[in-house]
Amino acid sequence: MKLQTIRWEAGKKTLVLIDQTRLPGKLVYMRCKTVEQVWQAIRALKVRGAPAIGAAAAFGMVLGIGQRKYAAYSCFKKKVDGLVRYLASARPTAVNLFWALERMKQVVLEHRTHPVPEIGERLLQEALAIMEEDRKSCRKMADIGQVFVKDNDSILTYCNAGILATVDYGTALGVIYRAKELKKKIKVYSCETRPLLQGARLTCWELRRNKIDVTLLCDNMAGYLMKQKKVDKIFIGADRISANGDVANKIGSYALAILAKYHRIPFYVVAPVSTFDTALASGADIPIEERDAREVGSLWYKRPMAPAGINVYNPAFDIVPGRLITAIVTDKGILTPAYLKKVRRLFSR
Amino acid sequence: MKLQTIRWEAGKKTLVLIDQTRLPGKLVYMRCKTVEQVWQAIRALKVRGAPAIGAAAAFGMVLGIGQRKYAAYSCFKKKVDGLVRYLASARPTAVNLFWALERMKQVVLEHRTHPVPEIGERLLQEALAIMEEDRKSCRKMADIGQVFVKDNDSILTYCNAGILATVDYGTALGVIYRAKELKKKIKVYSCETRPLLQGARLTCWELRRNKIDVTLLCDNMAGYLMKQKKVDKIFIGADRISANGDVANKIGSYALAILAKYHRIPFYVVAPVSTFDTALASGADIPIEERDAREVGSLWYKRPMAPAGINVYNPAFDIVPGRLITAIVTDKGILTPAYLKKVRRLFSR
Repeated sequence: MKLQTIRWEAGKKTLVLIDQTRLPGKLVYMRCKTVEQVWQAIRALKVRGAPAIGAAAAFGMVLGIGQRKYAAYSCFKKKVDGLVRYLASARPTAVNLFWALERMKQVVLEHRTHPVPEIGERLLQEALAIMEEDRKSCRKMADIGQVFVKDNDSILTYCNAGILATVDYGTALGVIYRAKELKKKIKVYSCETRPLLQGARLTCWELRRNKIDVTLLCDNMAGYLMKQKKVDKIFIGADRISANGDVANKIGSYALAILAKYHRIPFYVVAPVSTFDTALASGADIPIEERDAREVGSLWYKRPMAPAGINVYNPAFDIVPGRLITAIVTDKGILTPAYLKKVRRLFSR
Repeated sequence: MKLQTIRWEAGKKTLVLIDQTRLPGKLVYMRCKTVEQVWQAIRALKVRGAPAIGAAAAFGMVLGIGQRKYAAYSCFKKKVDGLVRYLASARPTAVNLFWALERMKQVVLEHRTHPVPEIGERLLQEALAIMEEDRKSCRKMADIGQVFVKDNDSILTYCNAGILATVDYGTALGVIYRAKELKKKIKVYSCETRPLLQGARLTCWELRRNKIDVTLLCDNMAGYLMKQKKVDKIFIGADRISANGDVANKIGSYALAILAKYHRIPFYVVAPVSTFDTALASGADIPIEERDAREVGSLWYKRPMAPAGINVYNPAFDIVPGRLITAIVTDKGILTPAYLKKVRRLFSR
């Protein structure tokens, strides 16, 4: 059966999400009927991955507005602003969340002279459009990215930038799925991605489900794997990209990029243009989420993996400087180092 | 109470070990009365750390010989050779295991004209000597290493090179314990060290027990931690060191050394001379143990962390090339890059 990371049930006005905290054990679809459920799903990583978060948040807003009658546009607008602030507070790093909410807000502003129920309908259309555009942009990136993928390539990936991180198909993994459709033989290495194991739980699961040859390794094994010449190239996704091409992505991406540089292995980032935050000059301006110590000290907040109450350093993301990136594959084309260098120069003036 | 990683109960002819697979949950002392129990303890990492394995294996041999009467020296010698082969098969990478067994074998050869019961007694003395020497050599390294440790240093360490990896005090952590005794204020960062979490379970546990300020991080966070300038230097132990100064140590050490180089952070290895295997010209000759896939795919072979039956890459060690090491602190003095370069040149002729 085809996976549906995010689905809108129009009749029941329900957002249906795969509960990714239950994978790989069980494929469970959870049903969100309130904005609070969507907020909680984003915060608790039941839905995660920058593009998927954006789409989920858009529907969260639709659910938050609900079927209520609003006395006037001003009341409605106040409600919308509150929902934007609320949903934006779920997670701080992935920009697609804010980008999607901003799009929704613009719809409201643009239709301020229309009757409120009509604006509500327009918002639903916008959420559906965000979802549909994500689906298309993933296919586009997958096609564009083929220039970097050869038959018999051995590709290392990190965290999950696949079907489960998007509405469908994936960013970094989309390139791999497309390669397979084009009959290229690809071997994938998936870093487990501590502490929440998105690589082990999600990437391995969806790749195997799609009959891609995948091998799991611990994050600390990636350097030695490269040393053994088992990695031809690296593909990852992104949570936010600053104007100069610095990339915020899952913690560990930075170290991986340094290891790739050291071993002269090409390092590619695959992300839609909605992941760019051109308001930020460099990666240093991207806020990095710090998460609960228990994510590291125990497995699923239950099984102890370290002494109870130990001090923990647990940033959820880090920044890969543009100079360590071979190219960024977007849905509008490829950004090369030369281009990124130009942008950097522009911003350093 | 003072920890005793390895203890010999003379009256009961019993080797008492801390069962390190039970930490940090419970401090359990296990009692070995047979060589098979010692072999199993080494294989299953109930006792681990290169120096500790060496000492345990020496007592394993004492237990293997036991109280039996041997008809002649030749029978006894055959038994000894069998025990050496058997114990050496427990783990392949840490050289201290083979070094300790070799020492035991030499005692037998040197006393071949003596009555067998006397040789048995000499073997026990040798095992006790190995244990005592390890205790002293750790203290020595801790003193010598002080030249690299300043007040207020922030030190990153990896895996467990502490009390639990030796008879007492530790190698890399010994330097930190000594610094504390000398009233230096030290902050330690401990990488959790996947898959078996020796950093999270053992290093955090013993450092906190000894009132050292320790913070746990996942292995994939070390690069970003360095980038944030939170690491002044790195201290690790070693499982085997080749003649040219290449160091085999817990998987991930290699990546850590590259990250240290990139951030210009000094990278120190602390190991007794018994860790050197001068028969090997370079690290490429050191055998690397591959361990069970279930170590990566589940927590303690029980809780799934990845899809069942997924392909896994699980080398237990990797090689840090000498050129990435700032200095090796041994119990006989410090090996500097200049010296190691000389040795490398010697061996490349």
